[in-house]
Amino acid sequence: MQTCKVTFTPENKTVEVRRGTTVLDAAKAGGIHIQSACGADRLCGKCRVIIKSGKVGTKPTGLLKSDEINHGIVLACEAMVFGDVAVEIPPESRAEKAQIVLGTRDDAVHHSKILQHNPLTTKILLKLPPPTLQDAISDLERIYRELKKQGIDNIQTSLANIKNLSALLRKNNWIITITVGKRHGAAEIILIEGGNTSMTNYGVAVDIGTTTVVAHLIDLVSGRTVGSTGSYNKQITYGDDVITRIIFAGQKEGLEKLHLAVVDNINSLIETLCRENNLNQKSITAVSAAGNPTMIHLLLNIDPAHIRKEPYIPTANEMPVIRAAEAGIKINPLGLLACAPGVSSYVGGDITAGLLGTGMTESDELALYIDMGTNGEMVLGNRNWLACCACSAGPAFEGSGIRSGTRAVKGAIQKIKIKTAALSAELDTIGQCKPHGICGSGLIEIISELLKAGIIKRDGKFAPESKSPYLKKTEQGMEYILAKSSNSATGNDIVISQSDIDNILRSKAAVYAGAMVLLKKMGHTIQDVRHFYIAGGFGSHLDIAKSIQIGLLPDVPLERFQYIGNGSAEGARLILLSYDAMTSVKKIAGKMTYIELSADNAFTEEFVAALFLPHTDLGLFPSVKE
Amino acid sequence: MQTCKVTFTPENKTVEVRRGTTVLDAAKAGGIHIQSACGADRLCGKCRVIIKSGKVGTKPTGLLKSDEINHGIVLACEAMVFGDVAVEIPPESRAEKAQIVLGTRDDAVHHSKILQHNPLTTKILLKLPPPTLQDAISDLERIYRELKKQGIDNIQTSLANIKNLSALLRKNNWIITITVGKRHGAAEIILIEGGNTSMTNYGVAVDIGTTTVVAHLIDLVSGRTVGSTGSYNKQITYGDDVITRIIFAGQKEGLEKLHLAVVDNINSLIETLCRENNLNQKSITAVSAAGNPTMIHLLLNIDPAHIRKEPYIPTANEMPVIRAAEAGIKINPLGLLACAPGVSSYVGGDITAGLLGTGMTESDELALYIDMGTNGEMVLGNRNWLACCACSAGPAFEGSGIRSGTRAVKGAIQKIKIKTAALSAELDTIGQCKPHGICGSGLIEIISELLKAGIIKRDGKFAPESKSPYLKKTEQGMEYILAKSSNSATGNDIVISQSDIDNILRSKAAVYAGAMVLLKKMGHTIQDVRHFYIAGGFGSHLDIAKSIQIGLLPDVPLERFQYIGNGSAEGARLILLSYDAMTSVKKIAGKMTYIELSADNAFTEEFVAALFLPHTDLGLFPSVKE
Repeated sequence: MQTCKVTFTPENKTVEVRRGTTVLDAAKAGGIHIQSACGADRLCGKCRVIIKSGKVGTKPTGLLKSDEINHGIVLACEAMVFGDVAVEIPPESRAEKAQIVLGTRDDAVHHSKILQHNPLTTKILLKLPPPTLQDAISDLERIYRELKKQGIDNIQTSLANIKNLSALLRKNNWIITITVGKRHGAAEIILIEGGNTSMTNYGVAVDIGTTTVVAHLIDLVSGRTVGSTGSYNKQITYGDDVITRIIFAGQKEGLEKLHLAVVDNINSLIETLCRENNLNQKSITAVSAAGNPTMIHLLLNIDPAHIRKEPYIPTANEMPVIRAAEAGIKINPLGLLACAPGVSSYVGGDITAGLLGTGMTESDELALYIDMGTNGEMVLGNRNWLACCACSAGPAFEGSGIRSGTRAVKGAIQKIKIKTAALSAELDTIGQCKPHGICGSGLIEIISELLKAGIIKRDGKFAPESKSPYLKKTEQGMEYILAKSSNSATGNDIVISQSDIDNILRSKAAVYAGAMVLLKKMGHTIQDVRHFYIAGGFGSHLDIAKSIQIGLLPDVPLERFQYIGNGSAEGARLILLSYDAMTSVKKIAGKMTYIELSADNAFTEEFVAALFLPHTDLGLFPSVKE
Repeated sequence: MQTCKVTFTPENKTVEVRRGTTVLDAAKAGGIHIQSACGADRLCGKCRVIIKSGKVGTKPTGLLKSDEINHGIVLACEAMVFGDVAVEIPPESRAEKAQIVLGTRDDAVHHSKILQHNPLTTKILLKLPPPTLQDAISDLERIYRELKKQGIDNIQTSLANIKNLSALLRKNNWIITITVGKRHGAAEIILIEGGNTSMTNYGVAVDIGTTTVVAHLIDLVSGRTVGSTGSYNKQITYGDDVITRIIFAGQKEGLEKLHLAVVDNINSLIETLCRENNLNQKSITAVSAAGNPTMIHLLLNIDPAHIRKEPYIPTANEMPVIRAAEAGIKINPLGLLACAPGVSSYVGGDITAGLLGTGMTESDELALYIDMGTNGEMVLGNRNWLACCACSAGPAFEGSGIRSGTRAVKGAIQKIKIKTAALSAELDTIGQCKPHGICGSGLIEIISELLKAGIIKRDGKFAPESKSPYLKKTEQGMEYILAKSSNSATGNDIVISQSDIDNILRSKAAVYAGAMVLLKKMGHTIQDVRHFYIAGGFGSHLDIAKSIQIGLLPDVPLERFQYIGNGSAEGARLILLSYDAMTSVKKIAGKMTYIELSADNAFTEEFVAALFLPHTDLGLFPSVKE
């Protein structure tokens, strides 16, 4: 085996490693810390080091500028040593502890913010000295003593972990893996396993939307997301929106049914993630969930009745961290479930956690956060103040309540261009395959294109006078054919109907009206807002310009917008990966003022005015007017 | 209704109360604190006040000296006002919080020590302001906010208490009672009940002995013991002592059987206490348990196998506070179970908790604590150091393994005098009724009397030459008739057999030998010990002089002895009533060194030498020799 010597400065420490080892791994072997925020995922660019002599193998990367490369800077996580090298670690690349980067996942652009890698559950390998007559402390004290040596104090445990402890320790020759969880303001021993399982610790971050449920499988050791999946919320059977579900929960066995539906959802998603990643569910020791307060109440089987009755009081905004099994979630039977804390009956942990990623709560500049879920929530403010409101936007943007609607999955139409000549549609689907439906971002494009082509009018009604051969009259009214049955994955025509368009109009009007009322209430105009953060389940793509064209978003310079994808799922991920994130989210929740729109005529007025494309008052959309 | 004005100085506050109200209750009504350590039980004498003018009704009390009475001093808890009075509260009678007195229960004499009344679970009445649109925090936050106002911070809760919270609050017009428990180093909401149940909060203190299980029902509001009961440990079916039970636990289903046996024991005792006191089990929110480590392991269904295998390691000395239901104990389903922390495999929480009452851990003088249970434990030391050991004494002193043996209950022979003329026995039973058996203290008296009367010899064997008409020869050997069948409650003769006497001799020899070896190991002689604290399940009575005569206790001046009764049960009571006691017991456990006797020849030598009455070496018992 050929070895290479890697000498690190300023430590002046030489480490001998196998040929092909990365500089980062060489540093680790030598006990030298280098920042690696993304978990050696070549995402963060934090692990820059300077090669002072010798050669390393690198791959092209957009994370380094050419003059940096010319100065010998490489990413330690990917630079492999093929001979003796001297490496200088610049101060900015040092870190005492591993860190994770917030954001920059998928195509979403997040405010970059460094959080400590300090997951909800952490596995710690312990090699205990076997007891002797001279060192005869109890088995549990032996574990506590070792954890204390590793800086973990104020330790709690449960009876479940003590019951078979004595046999477990002896069967495994005193080598065990302890899973420590953040709970009750202390370090709680969640799980004690025999042998070394410390490299196998997974968590699932769940976004429970009114319409969709999304789950990410996360390697809690590296911080990497290793799998993602989603489905429609099974509760839809019992009602499309939060209000109808709360009413259903009040009926006989209603609460139980809604609870079981979403738990079943989550369990199916976890099963899928485990199967796809060849993982035993016991390896999952933590679940984090973000959702609106009703979703979280139903998840925990708590009656949400008073959320919809004046004065609109949830049972709790901040739920205790419990064992996931208590809620029926199937992971390791002793694993934990933490929910992102909410603000009020209609602004939940999905929003507080989503905000975390934007950085707006730490900036002096005024920003507006808009989450376009079934329940449209928005937050206005900056580091000094935060005000939020919620309005029912409907599930259209999540592809529900739309005849050919679908979630942003493979085969979903996400972009569209109507060829003026034939007035037929040119489609782009996720995964570049035959279309099977239209997702949220596709719907926005369709409305925008149909309007531009004159196939629909500014009131959203079809214009038969456009004479498009793809316009069809049916018993239910007019519809526009996007893909013929012969070209679709379903074997049926993929169409958009008048009723679909009406639904989308209502959704976009609700979002716009909500934003306008919130601004007015806080004494601001749209022009005061320097940053717009748009969250939603549109997948990787949302065309901001087209969103403005249909009046979903206000008409301000495009550079003020950032589409951040599923902010709630991202928030859940951060809570899972960092206790600091949980603390920050609690602070955000504590700072936010909730503005109740339901009793407000201003909202109704704004809503009605916005039921036009882009708006009744074209003066508000000068760029569209042009 | 006639009212009286009670004016308190130095507050200069006048309270108007009903005629016949006690001064203490008048002070409470006026928000004025007076110490009342015993819970107005006329036990502690802490609530002294001076009547400056007016007259109050009092009863004779031994707690006040005649010159104090002449100076107008009365006990506020019993002095009733029958007209307008002026009361001065001296500084020593002031207290910011209620306190409990340790000891002075039954006839046992304890070192008096004041502990804060701060039970394992406390009920707090909350009258919450109903929510409004202006005060729309969640139900749980509303509770937390109110608790914080009462100085309770760092609050945790469980899902169980949240599930039906919203309905509970509204059904009870926002008046609820919160049970707060000491757990996870935080204040945990154990229970939320509708309405005001704050005056109904009970706990059960259990002493789990190898042979007997004793339970006290304690009013956690006043601190008073309202009922006591006991039974033999049902585990006896599976083995007489700790070692045979540990072996049995290793057999198929053995652990489960032992666990269920003791849980069944405790549940029966709790049922009895509830029935006798007309109490619903839901009103019991806490159980404390003290016992040797094997008993505690079995209570919690933890395999005790390694307690008896070198190097003798228990799974845990300090068990987590759990929900009593987790161990199968039937009280309020959300109530807690706390176990007194132990020191080693053979010295448990029964001893650490028992020590607490003696004050020896805070004194400069050398003391020896002896607990005469089936497993005889002793502790030598003072405020600076503590050393302990354990030896198997057998269950004889608890009335088990003795043909006519019984626990110290009604009908048990507790005193005896052999009339020299007829060599027949004159008996004194508990409750002054027909005898049904002999309890531990009775056995000691019988041996002492039989020896004095020459019916047995110094080696414990019957002396036929004594010609007692009550000596009988049977197939099993000789026996002495204490009560003829016609005079007994059982309808059978109550006798003591040769094998009974041999058992008692072994028990007393083990206790004495243990004490001697411990003293020698620590470089002390019996004369160095200033205080002997004797604990055991003898009931209210133990004749120290006769215990010396048979060589159970060493021959030192009688005034050095204090019989403290069931130290373990008393310790469990203190842990239940005061979190300070729990902290103190943990400190005691941390300070104690365990001396292993099993590998020691010195013990065997001492044991054999002590198998005589009082001892092979009469020089050790000069007062008996005379």
